[in-house]
Amino acid sequence: MPDAVIHSVSTCDARFPLPPGAGTDSLHTNSEYSFAVTCLSGENGLRGTGIALTLGKGNKLVCEAIEMLANPLAGTAIEELMADFGRVSRKLADDPSLRWLGPHKGVVHLALASITNACFDFWAKSRGKPLWKLLLDLAPDEVVRLLDLSYLDEVLSERDAVELLQGQLASRNTRMSILNTGYPGYDTSVGWMGYDDQKVRDLTRRAMDSGFKAFKLKVGSDDQDHDLRRAAMLRECIGDSGALMFDANQRWSLPVAVRMSRELALYKPTWIEEPTHPDDIHGHALLAREIVPIKIAAGEHIPNRVVFKNFFQASAIHYVQADCTRLAGVSEFLTVSLLAQKFGLPVVPHVGDMGQLHQHLVLFNRIGLGQEPLFLEHISHLRDHFVFPATVADGCYKTPQQPGASCDLKLSFAGNP
Amino acid sequence: MPDAVIHSVSTCDARFPLPPGAGTDSLHTNSEYSFAVTCLSGENGLRGTGIALTLGKGNKLVCEAIEMLANPLAGTAIEELMADFGRVSRKLADDPSLRWLGPHKGVVHLALASITNACFDFWAKSRGKPLWKLLLDLAPDEVVRLLDLSYLDEVLSERDAVELLQGQLASRNTRMSILNTGYPGYDTSVGWMGYDDQKVRDLTRRAMDSGFKAFKLKVGSDDQDHDLRRAAMLRECIGDSGALMFDANQRWSLPVAVRMSRELALYKPTWIEEPTHPDDIHGHALLAREIVPIKIAAGEHIPNRVVFKNFFQASAIHYVQADCTRLAGVSEFLTVSLLAQKFGLPVVPHVGDMGQLHQHLVLFNRIGLGQEPLFLEHISHLRDHFVFPATVADGCYKTPQQPGASCDLKLSFAGNP
Repeated sequence: MPDAVIHSVSTCDARFPLPPGAGTDSLHTNSEYSFAVTCLSGENGLRGTGIALTLGKGNKLVCEAIEMLANPLAGTAIEELMADFGRVSRKLADDPSLRWLGPHKGVVHLALASITNACFDFWAKSRGKPLWKLLLDLAPDEVVRLLDLSYLDEVLSERDAVELLQGQLASRNTRMSILNTGYPGYDTSVGWMGYDDQKVRDLTRRAMDSGFKAFKLKVGSDDQDHDLRRAAMLRECIGDSGALMFDANQRWSLPVAVRMSRELALYKPTWIEEPTHPDDIHGHALLAREIVPIKIAAGEHIPNRVVFKNFFQASAIHYVQADCTRLAGVSEFLTVSLLAQKFGLPVVPHVGDMGQLHQHLVLFNRIGLGQEPLFLEHISHLRDHFVFPATVADGCYKTPQQPGASCDLKLSFAGNP
Repeated sequence: MPDAVIHSVSTCDARFPLPPGAGTDSLHTNSEYSFAVTCLSGENGLRGTGIALTLGKGNKLVCEAIEMLANPLAGTAIEELMADFGRVSRKLADDPSLRWLGPHKGVVHLALASITNACFDFWAKSRGKPLWKLLLDLAPDEVVRLLDLSYLDEVLSERDAVELLQGQLASRNTRMSILNTGYPGYDTSVGWMGYDDQKVRDLTRRAMDSGFKAFKLKVGSDDQDHDLRRAAMLRECIGDSGALMFDANQRWSLPVAVRMSRELALYKPTWIEEPTHPDDIHGHALLAREIVPIKIAAGEHIPNRVVFKNFFQASAIHYVQADCTRLAGVSEFLTVSLLAQKFGLPVVPHVGDMGQLHQHLVLFNRIGLGQEPLFLEHISHLRDHFVFPATVADGCYKTPQQPGASCDLKLSFAGNP
């Protein structure tokens, strides 16, 4: 196979204003989903697209950080790059003049997410495979060479990681059926905070009719009675058999989180999501002990593998909502997935990519890593903007077949604001 | 007193290349200290200057984030702003279109540091007082209204904070002598990684001659024998009575940190600084237990009060190197100082401001909070660029007397690149 070369790197600040109410929660009152896009161009129209999610004007900063970080990629051959991508990723993450801005968090790390995702897309397209298949076709040591495992030595050495992957090879065939059945989805778009009761009920019924069995409701408003009433309403709407998740988007102090979680327990949530500040590992651990048997989910604002490691070590979360547009892209997502597997925790991605890229990654996690196939978040607001939008049928993501990571956007990269 | 109005906000991307070797450590091989400067302009030449440190090209991103965040300040009256600055700060930190980039860390939080520091400088100048005096002249409840104590409820309520400050009022007089003796300094500039042995020895002797009794050496190089040899050299150079600190700048994995800390114990360090990744609270806590009685210092990369809270709860550090150019400025620095006091820990700032602003804050911490006056880091490379550079005599910072926070730079704000 010829080694495709990245000829140039460009960025695009892509903004997508949403309809009123869509995308709103206890902290985010605007509704402008934004992608900081990395575009890698090769020969014969080969293009790698990587995205990182932000929520509006700050997107510009991530695009500029991409430009600062990504230039060394121009002129490199993709196979050579990916043969040792863990080292490449660490080097980019430790750029001496940008590292101070994190390290490994915030604007620069989001930029690295976008860049990394573009590399994986370029690579998969150059091999003519959808990303999930590319990853599954790699040998365990090839997978591990994609990863930066630094600062994880005491819990996940390179050897641990290879052994973990090798240990799943023999049983892979028993898990391949997911490619045919599709990966179950859950619907977040029914329960935005800015939607009135009637809209929530209508959307939920429509989602149930189309096969969804799991739904999320935003809580954490200033009016806690309102939150409880809506929780009751949605539980009634979906019946006892549906799965229901409550998402506070970090709004609660620890004492409020304890009280509200206990009150919401009445409505049998699968999890309480982002109950308090995402940096408060000790707070999450305390909460988890206080509200047994209620489960906690978090991850969309956990910036890197080291913080995830600490969450796992503290038994502070039950569902790992890693997001490859928050972490340093596909490779750090895989690292966190390996860590989660080691700690016996399920990975249920937050979809900053609207599920486009994560639909590949959950298939790898299921087949290659032996993760349980719980469900993948589904948010449909941007589907018309993707060249190959993720397709959900009967509540399940259909396995993507096109080469790449499904992140190409329809907009013209040149002409975007 | 008339309420001075902020008429306009501007920023400046100030870069200061350093001489070869200066500022280098195990991770930072460049030597371009950079300030993302916020300039608030009022009537009659009244100007507030705030700074946040970065290390080079990323400084531009922080300046742009300042522009995105700070515009609402134009037209506000400073007394009104500062009467409830805790709420103002929280609102800025939770800007719905920028919060996703953190939250409360990285580029946007550095921008908030610079903005906040400018507000305090403007305020102190408008009252004609050096910042340390302004802060000491406030009543405890006025101090607490400067602070955003959200997400600290279970360890530091507003009432706790007021009581902590009130409890120190009666004994203040016994601590005022620090204003005359000056606040002890320690010298970081003798031990940069890029300096050869002879230069380290020469600089150390010169610093000893000028009254310094405490010194820092960079470790964490690829050659661990080199680190140990240099540690021995510096201990020999300063004798048994001098204080010596070793700074690994996050370079070590946890197993290496344990081993190196034990080996460096031979040279009787006051602390080991940033032994491993700054997000690894659990790792620091493990290390602290493994290397008793050696002490750990960290903070220059701890982004906010919530992460500091977790470090304290985990008994993961002994010396709190909070930095008001990393935290959200003066106010979050004070919050972390109150938290540290509550946990019985000493605050020994990292000086991203080169000590200009922190020389005020340690005086407040000593007199107003009852903190022990250990020593304040001193780095002199940029002193010629400040209008009123911090002055050290006989190893002690002389108490600043000019109104403000001592952050005005000599450069022309308009003409800077």
